[in-house]
Amino acid sequence: MENKAIQDLYSDDYSQCYGCGRLNEGGLQIKTYWNGKEGICTFKPHSNHTSLAGFAYGGLIASVIDCNGTATAAAAAYEAEGREFGSDPEIRFVTASLHVDYLKPTPIEGPLEVTSVIKEIKGKKVIIETDLKVGDVLCAKGEMVAVKVPATMLQGK
Amino acid sequence: MENKAIQDLYSDDYSQCYGCGRLNEGGLQIKTYWNGKEGICTFKPHSNHTSLAGFAYGGLIASVIDCNGTATAAAAAYEAEGREFGSDPEIRFVTASLHVDYLKPTPIEGPLEVTSVIKEIKGKKVIIETDLKVGDVLCAKGEMVAVKVPATMLQGK
Repeated sequence: MENKAIQDLYSDDYSQCYGCGRLNEGGLQIKTYWNGKEGICTFKPHSNHTSLAGFAYGGLIASVIDCNGTATAAAAAYEAEGREFGSDPEIRFVTASLHVDYLKPTPIEGPLEVTSVIKEIKGKKVIIETDLKVGDVLCAKGEMVAVKVPATMLQGK
Repeated sequence: MENKAIQDLYSDDYSQCYGCGRLNEGGLQIKTYWNGKEGICTFKPHSNHTSLAGFAYGGLIASVIDCNGTATAAAAAYEAEGREFGSDPEIRFVTASLHVDYLKPTPIEGPLEVTSVIKEIKGKKVIIETDLKVGDVLCAKGEMVAVKVPATMLQGK
């Protein structure tokens, strides 16, 4: 699985996300790779993803942290169950809360190097911590709570 | 000023933001209106701003809360100084931290009705609270800390 992005293994129903859905062609196409303990994403902002000129937009930073975090939660949850990623029943997470600390202005050239780890698992809730760096500079930190997707969120199911 | 969006009164240097810059043509063009105590935005998501089908993307929700919050901080700061909005020296804020609680799945049809108020002002820091509703349903709440933009963030100045 290390060679495939987590998001590219989501089923079609879970692949509509503007941030990371492989079927959302106009979306950001955020891709996360799992190395057994961390979910890792390298993201190159588009030239218009600006806040002030030269720096990346905070909403984009929140988006990358969000999608990298829920993907990391899914990978870790499969691993905790000793199951192959993507096997049924599919495990996916949505974000219950997201906290981002913007520590330094983030150069828009990037690339954003984003690393998420699992801090804690409490039943259906997972707490994920994320560092976002450009080069050696830690530009933002995220902490989020993700929960397993309830069946009611899948329309028509 | 009630008839003009706060963001449409930012100077050109501050109008590059992907979320709310009037000069960022491919951006979200988030617009906030100040009524003297609240910053209010109505935002219609694009059809591809999905999380799961039928629901709005969390990163978009974070973005709308972010830009509405910093605009509200700017409007409140001018008002606190008894100055006309946009007068020099220009007052603008950037986000130091952003926390979003996703309370309910947010229907993508929207429109998102976003209302920000100032909770506290501490020197250069402002704490802003934001409610995001669709119809009568409170879908998300935000709390953010914004700080006055340091001159070093404006390139070439």
